[in-house]
Amino acid sequence: MKDPFMQAALEEARKGRREGGIPIGSVLVIDGRIVGRGHNQRVQKGSCVLHAEMDCLENAGRLKASDYRRATLYSTLSPCDMCSGTVLLYGIPKVVVGENLSFQGPEAYVRSRGVELDIRDDAECKQLMQDFIAQQPALWNEDIGE
Amino acid sequence: MKDPFMQAALEEARKGRREGGIPIGSVLVIDGRIVGRGHNQRVQKGSCVLHAEMDCLENAGRLKASDYRRATLYSTLSPCDMCSGTVLLYGIPKVVVGENLSFQGPEAYVRSRGVELDIRDDAECKQLMQDFIAQQPALWNEDIGE
Repeated sequence: MKDPFMQAALEEARKGRREGGIPIGSVLVIDGRIVGRGHNQRVQKGSCVLHAEMDCLENAGRLKASDYRRATLYSTLSPCDMCSGTVLLYGIPKVVVGENLSFQGPEAYVRSRGVELDIRDDAECKQLMQDFIAQQPALWNEDIGE
Repeated sequence: MKDPFMQAALEEARKGRREGGIPIGSVLVIDGRIVGRGHNQRVQKGSCVLHAEMDCLENAGRLKASDYRRATLYSTLSPCDMCSGTVLLYGIPKVVVGENLSFQGPEAYVRSRGVELDIRDDAECKQLMQDFIAQQPALWNEDIGE
């Protein structure tokens, strides 16, 4: 059975791709309910800070510390240094990751700070990223600071 | 002599305070010129991701990797996990910090990743934060995920 939350993150990623953007999506789940969703906004908003996870958290709005501390963040791709740092800032205890083959963030460090990472090896997430990277390598490199 | 870039970051912090926001400011300097400036937008934009450093980078726009790699980021306060992670993502080699008494980010980790941190013990930066924290402790705690 497919994970409905990862499917929602994938929907966000596909929406971003249809907009001409980078196909990474994210949802924030608290008490079994999606409270925020988003996708990478580099192309759409000319943003260098709104990676999918950041857009998702921004769309969730100003939450209480006690909300973040029982939340799970879903992302179609392994969170980069920025997004991982945001997880640490807000004390989000768990991150579910679609795949970490196309890109791998600082997973060992994040785990060392007490965050649970659940890395899936999701075929749809991988395909979406691999197609995108092959098509627009310069845009992808810009997004990861390379 | 006062550092004009730290003074510019302080101006941003004071502007934020006059707007009713959290008084932290930041500027990004490349080749001796300010290319972006910003201040914390939690109150003003209801944002949980636009810390001063993030707002500054967002206002600087989409830069090339080669631009970030010769940039210096100024902040009136020690960058948190999120903002430190963003420095790492983009490979910004140097961060000048107004003070780290009111709050201290993951400085040892950031240094271990090769970033130079120049921590000033700036009296104006400290006063601004100490006054704010005394006046609005709940807002401050929200901003640092506590």
